[in-house]
Amino acid sequence: MEKIIINQYKRPRLASPVLIGGLPGIGNVGKIAAEYLVEKLKMEKFADIYSQYLPPQVFIDDTGVVKLVRNTLYYKKLKGRSDLLVLVGDFQGTTQEGQYEMSYQILELARKLEVSMVYTLGGYSTGKIVEIPRVLGAVTDESLVKALTDSGVVFPKGEPGGGIVGSAGVMLGLGKELFSMQGACLMGETSGYFADPKGAKEVVKILVNLLSLEVDLSDLEERSKQIEQITEKMQEDVQGKVTQKDDLGYFG
Amino acid sequence: MEKIIINQYKRPRLASPVLIGGLPGIGNVGKIAAEYLVEKLKMEKFADIYSQYLPPQVFIDDTGVVKLVRNTLYYKKLKGRSDLLVLVGDFQGTTQEGQYEMSYQILELARKLEVSMVYTLGGYSTGKIVEIPRVLGAVTDESLVKALTDSGVVFPKGEPGGGIVGSAGVMLGLGKELFSMQGACLMGETSGYFADPKGAKEVVKILVNLLSLEVDLSDLEERSKQIEQITEKMQEDVQGKVTQKDDLGYFG
Amino acid sequence: MEKIIINQYKRPRLASPVLIGGLPGIGNVGKIAAEYLVEKLKMEKFADIYSQYLPPQVFIDDTGVVKLVRNTLYYKKLKGRSDLLVLVGDFQGTTQEGQYEMSYQILELARKLEVSMVYTLGGYSTGKIVEIPRVLGAVTDESLVKALTDSGVVFPKGEPGGGIVGSAGVMLGLGKELFSMQGACLMGETSGYFADPKGAKEVVKILVNLLSLEVDLSDLEERSKQIEQITEKMQEDVQGKVTQKDDLGYFG
Amino acid sequence: MEKIIINQYKRPRLASPVLIGGLPGIGNVGKIAAEYLVEKLKMEKFADIYSQYLPPQVFIDDTGVVKLVRNTLYYKKLKGRSDLLVLVGDFQGTTQEGQYEMSYQILELARKLEVSMVYTLGGYSTGKIVEIPRVLGAVTDESLVKALTDSGVVFPKGEPGGGIVGSAGVMLGLGKELFSMQGACLMGETSGYFADPKGAKEVVKILVNLLSLEVDLSDLEERSKQIEQITEKMQEDVQGKVTQKDDLGYFG
Repeated sequence: MEKIIINQYKRPRLASPVLIGGLPGIGNVGKIAAEYLVEKLKMEKFADIYSQYLPPQVFIDDTGVVKLVRNTLYYKKLKGRSDLLVLVGDFQGTTQEGQYEMSYQILELARKLEVSMVYTLGGYSTGKIVEIPRVLGAVTDESLVKALTDSGVVFPKGEPGGGIVGSAGVMLGLGKELFSMQGACLMGETSGYFADPKGAKEVVKILVNLLSLEVDLSDLEERSKQIEQITEKMQEDVQGKVTQKDDLGYFG
Repeated sequence: MEKIIINQYKRPRLASPVLIGGLPGIGNVGKIAAEYLVEKLKMEKFADIYSQYLPPQVFIDDTGVVKLVRNTLYYKKLKGRSDLLVLVGDFQGTTQEGQYEMSYQILELARKLEVSMVYTLGGYSTGKIVEIPRVLGAVTDESLVKALTDSGVVFPKGEPGGGIVGSAGVMLGLGKELFSMQGACLMGETSGYFADPKGAKEVVKILVNLLSLEVDLSDLEERSKQIEQITEKMQEDVQGKVTQKDDLGYFG
Repeated sequence: MEKIIINQYKRPRLASPVLIGGLPGIGNVGKIAAEYLVEKLKMEKFADIYSQYLPPQVFIDDTGVVKLVRNTLYYKKLKGRSDLLVLVGDFQGTTQEGQYEMSYQILELARKLEVSMVYTLGGYSTGKIVEIPRVLGAVTDESLVKALTDSGVVFPKGEPGGGIVGSAGVMLGLGKELFSMQGACLMGETSGYFADPKGAKEVVKILVNLLSLEVDLSDLEERSKQIEQITEKMQEDVQGKVTQKDDLGYFG
Repeated sequence: MEKIIINQYKRPRLASPVLIGGLPGIGNVGKIAAEYLVEKLKMEKFADIYSQYLPPQVFIDDTGVVKLVRNTLYYKKLKGRSDLLVLVGDFQGTTQEGQYEMSYQILELARKLEVSMVYTLGGYSTGKIVEIPRVLGAVTDESLVKALTDSGVVFPKGEPGGGIVGSAGVMLGLGKELFSMQGACLMGETSGYFADPKGAKEVVKILVNLLSLEVDLSDLEERSKQIEQITEKMQEDVQGKVTQKDDLGYFG
């Protein structure tokens, strides 16, 4: 079989689309943010990606029906603004080769759809609970920094120290070097200890600003509050009455 | 060499055949069940599959003759019913790529033989000894649930939680997405601590019902009883006279 | 680059040649035996095999000159008997794929040279020091058992239990299934704790018998005695005056 | 995508160029030495190499701009002497296959540029701090030993015992066997516990001698002194007032 099989069942005509990639990763921040956009913008599925670079696995839904693990692409036509493509998925490629190949082939498809700007979404692990997560940025071209800063993204020098590992980094890197695509990575701060809607909410806010989207954030706020209550409860349990909250360490 | 070499030495003409896959896995339930069918139905071997995705190994029989590890396909023509294909083997593909490729190429061969329905057999690990193992099901299409339920298969919501990993899952997933084949996975409950004929017996019973097979189950019942006696003995040894049997934990 | 590069710098014309494979493995028995034949029969090098399946490494000789790791083929024309090919090397293929591919390509070359019989040499780990190592056999065809037994090879039922893993097994398995070549594996018993000339000596003796070779065994006998003295010394040191020698366990 | 993508954006015409390879490795000696040459000789970048054999990662510079990990080639035209090519990079190929493939394709490019001599730079781990690191050599041809010895390289018998593993070895090995290129490996002694400019300085000195380069060594001397001060401090801290310096063991 082909190492990557893209089953594209719709051929949307798009106007200057931007691609947003949100695959599983640190705190699942990117995945939660991207799936939230898909849901709230009622985006339309148009391609499934199967691959040997994904685990050999099916999931089972509540009716007993299996679903082969995959990445999926959605689109949304937006009047007067750039149209939107969103990449979500069950897994990132599980090997080094898989990381490169999957990013490359998705970028090839993006080029055919005339994408010229890519946003990759991810988490930035702080190792502790953060009250209000910042969104850190990285870009393919310095000229992009200003617009992102204006939208609330921060570019602290020397962070993230090790650069960006995985899909969120490789899509920008390959996009820049091999596809002449501009791109930015938006990393929501997260403790990294659990799937974290708080970091995701901040990332979605930035995207709403940048791309003039109309997205109701209330569900994500609700989920963030629930997580906050759980983590506060856990902190109290762990630390007794000590109220110091900024250095929880691993508790899960 | 080709990564997978299928040596098909017979070309059976089959009437609406179903493919049953039973490779080694949890409790070897699928393998035991599939090999039992091959033996009791006196099925005919028609293809051997060698591969770089299998361990680099030969087995040695009692006469000193080596046998390269492989997967093997058998067939049986059955009057008035669907003909039968059974896949058995020494190993599943040992890598992620191997899992996908081997499943894909076996499905390709199955399509040439006009297979339109695939059953994959496996074990479902309960982590404890079960008196009467249930057979859990998963399907490629909700319309298949009723016939399976009528034959005794159960579809408990949220089980198996992580989906199905390995050949039993991938063959259904690829069959559905790339070959338009319907399929079902039958998972016999097993402690998972040893090769388990009890779970296999329940799986064979379901297949006998579903496919109107005539299979003498007495040998499998005999082997199940032997295993039961051994595990009861072990429980007594481990737990003294305590007769509580439903939570043995790991003893082997 | 090609995954395997065979640099064949001579084209020997051979009469009904047999191929003997002796790569590193358990106790290095096969490698020691094969290299001994190459040396004592003054065999001629005719092909080097480089590969991505071997470690990315060069060795350095006493003059400071590097040598890329490799497998090497030697030949010897023998009047009135089968000509001889011997395969030796620094390493076996290091991955499952490498095991299959390297064996396959060497067999392809062997077929071009009209080889119809393959002997693979290896060690059989006993886990203890053996006074007089046996040579265990495995064959591609039951008809080969008698001649081997007559030459002193033993075929104990159920040994080796797990079959033969690695080059010594795969070359026979692929030779049989894909090249219609007959073959036998000769496994010299060895503790498995160190490079073992004793097991190798017994393997060479068998080959001398089987193939009517003229090989002076005195050097190998000398090296075996040296090893015996070292291990006896170690046993005394380890066990005090206890002279029981048959169950040393791991001491190295 | 191609497994290795070489983006060559300049086509220098070179006179009998030599290639110097200095990728990350033991004590980063080779990388530090090669990057020092690039900087001090104001060498010109002419090709970037991206690959699936490198980690799926981007680095981020102080302006927030990402850079896909890579290897890079520089050149320098030198009047009256051999022109110079230098290979530097963020990583070596991370797999065995990657080690071979990347070395092979770089050698292919080198051949097109008419390179006939390759120097690979590396570290030789002594496991302790050395006052004045030696530079050990290994060559593809014995005739090269004299010129290297005259330049201060040493060829101690039996060192390095295990040969040379990784890019520094494979480039010589493949260069010799498949490209008829001569080559030498220069290994600066280093404790191996940290990035070590002292070993690198000695390697650069040798190259300056061998290739009649004009390179100001003062920066590297400065960095070596700093490292020396730090390690002396650490030794004092670790060992109290004990001044014995030649066997630090792992402290970092």
